[in-house]
Amino acid sequence: MSAPKIVFSRRLRQTPFEQRALEQGAKAFTVYNHMPLSSVYESPEEDYAHLCEHVQVWDVACERQVEVVGKDALALVELVTPRDISKCAIGQCFYAPVCDENGGVVNDPIIIRLAEDRFWVSIADSDVLLWMKGIAYGRAMDVSVFEPDVSPLAVQGPKSFDLMADLVGEHIRDIRFFWFIETEIAGTEVILARSGWSGQGGFEIYLQDSSRGLDLWDAVWRAGEKYNIWAGCPNLIERLETGLLSYGSDMTLDNNPLECGLDRFFKLGKPAEYMCREALDTIAAQGVARKVVNLKVMDDKLTAPRSTWNVKNETGEVVGILTSLAYSPKYEANLCFATIDAAYGNQGQTLIVDIGGSGFREGVVCDLKWNQGASI
Amino acid sequence: MSAPKIVFSRRLRQTPFEQRALEQGAKAFTVYNHMPLSSVYESPEEDYAHLCEHVQVWDVACERQVEVVGKDALALVELVTPRDISKCAIGQCFYAPVCDENGGVVNDPIIIRLAEDRFWVSIADSDVLLWMKGIAYGRAMDVSVFEPDVSPLAVQGPKSFDLMADLVGEHIRDIRFFWFIETEIAGTEVILARSGWSGQGGFEIYLQDSSRGLDLWDAVWRAGEKYNIWAGCPNLIERLETGLLSYGSDMTLDNNPLECGLDRFFKLGKPAEYMCREALDTIAAQGVARKVVNLKVMDDKLTAPRSTWNVKNETGEVVGILTSLAYSPKYEANLCFATIDAAYGNQGQTLIVDIGGSGFREGVVCDLKWNQGASI
Repeated sequence: MSAPKIVFSRRLRQTPFEQRALEQGAKAFTVYNHMPLSSVYESPEEDYAHLCEHVQVWDVACERQVEVVGKDALALVELVTPRDISKCAIGQCFYAPVCDENGGVVNDPIIIRLAEDRFWVSIADSDVLLWMKGIAYGRAMDVSVFEPDVSPLAVQGPKSFDLMADLVGEHIRDIRFFWFIETEIAGTEVILARSGWSGQGGFEIYLQDSSRGLDLWDAVWRAGEKYNIWAGCPNLIERLETGLLSYGSDMTLDNNPLECGLDRFFKLGKPAEYMCREALDTIAAQGVARKVVNLKVMDDKLTAPRSTWNVKNETGEVVGILTSLAYSPKYEANLCFATIDAAYGNQGQTLIVDIGGSGFREGVVCDLKWNQGASI
Repeated sequence: MSAPKIVFSRRLRQTPFEQRALEQGAKAFTVYNHMPLSSVYESPEEDYAHLCEHVQVWDVACERQVEVVGKDALALVELVTPRDISKCAIGQCFYAPVCDENGGVVNDPIIIRLAEDRFWVSIADSDVLLWMKGIAYGRAMDVSVFEPDVSPLAVQGPKSFDLMADLVGEHIRDIRFFWFIETEIAGTEVILARSGWSGQGGFEIYLQDSSRGLDLWDAVWRAGEKYNIWAGCPNLIERLETGLLSYGSDMTLDNNPLECGLDRFFKLGKPAEYMCREALDTIAAQGVARKVVNLKVMDDKLTAPRSTWNVKNETGEVVGILTSLAYSPKYEANLCFATIDAAYGNQGQTLIVDIGGSGFREGVVCDLKWNQGASI
């Protein structure tokens, strides 16, 4: 049977850049925040190789914003995350897990501080709008929570700096990682952040008028022609190599941020009230039961599972699940994320992947840089 | 350019029936509640014709449940909808819009009462789980809100009654519309409701153990072979003929239930507290500014727009948007849902549809049964 098609309707909301993505040959899509997100142009391997060497423009309008504004804006944003948002300066972006009262991960957005009492929560794939609106209503907080007309367009890859300097000015080279400036491109006001869902460097341009999407795309495209620009999208191979977890795939509401290793982005016990304080304190005191780990599987190139594969210890007991997989040309190995019982989650641990009932492969737990440790 | 493919990953959660849907030739999918939902098997026209004459089994696992259980369960369910849920008996299902404090439609689920203090909210495509968890947390309500392991399998079409009588027993013919029984099929406990997202009659079987999905599908399939069963899915032509609005396409958070005509399912002013009381009272007193209407466009068979088309009055002024469209063999017309300024939303009103800048077509506002009134 041939690979099934995707059917668009108004419910899968059209992006301001979608027409260009299709014209440039997007072959396959996923859906993210009720919006299409392209996932392949040439092939995952060709898209990856180009991204690592040149520059790409990505329609990531599906990274929707939840705007939080008003007297209680900071209090609400603080309430939903263990990260200390009071330390986020105006002009800065914080990667911050949003957790429920049990510590379950609701989303892992980037929180952008636009003003003292105005934030954009730039979300992964779950309706944080409803989450934060519900809490604000329940608490009778003095805050407005809504989805603004904001659509990010990413410019990613090593040549993105030259491209954006040509397009906007040399001063863009001074934007620090996870900071932003307000500027104008193609005659429309944008927020220009040095960020993006790859490890190849680049920017995210937050368009604030969806009627100007094609103009913005075209302006980036023209500036990129001399740098061999392609249309692209978040690339599975690259995100595995770089170690970017995907909410919904590698962590869900069933995971807490400590077992996901997200506590490298925050310190428990910030001064402000936050709803997962007690839950995370308890987990921290007891130690995590599971760990989300980097698992390297040597051997032949594997095709990723539809959903998950079981991971076993040497006696055949299931000790975890594999949640993402891509074959990396750089490491000449299958790079995987897996959620593993903590006892088996240490660097250098050998594990067995049950590849969908059709065989077994040996894997080894690595650190975040895919080092497998001295024991192997 | 050929129609783009859909790419599955763990984030687009695998359904318990998905393997069979693919084996039966599902050609295209959409995504609904972070899960694939098939949208075509043979062709929309053939699927439609078969559904109206025979029986189909549909993988609608994407109709996820939000379980609400505990001392404050009724209070929480009452809080989020204007419909009087105290009148929903145990064993009954209520179609009930969920609205925010401004009256905006968050979802239009079916609320299933399993016990005095236990409900399933069977949702359309938005994260009602986060909405209700957020409110419950904010209000410190004594209630548990979670997504249980429950996946509906629909059996739809005129022969569904004979099929289910063969499979479960003649007593299934006594289940009233929007009521349910608890029973066992293929050795697994299910909730069997007389409901479903078509006007052709049928049942929804709520599987409560996803590991038994293929067994349940196979049992239905075997019982259906003598009735010419097909695999199917919610069909656009049939839903337009029947008048079923789709959340996200025909109404969004930007619409209130009064302008959507959903007030035929509830009466304002129920005794219990509900969060949209004041907003809906105000809208009701002022009269709605817009109406979601049935719009019939004669002429040739049109291809539905990617998102919306503008609808104009006879002087060319934009007075609304068309949100869904399908050509109906039964009515020999394009049946559409459209959101129209109230002044132009009365039965018999003639309107002009701007079909994506490539021409215009005349349409007429109809009642819910597609009667266009005496004026035409």
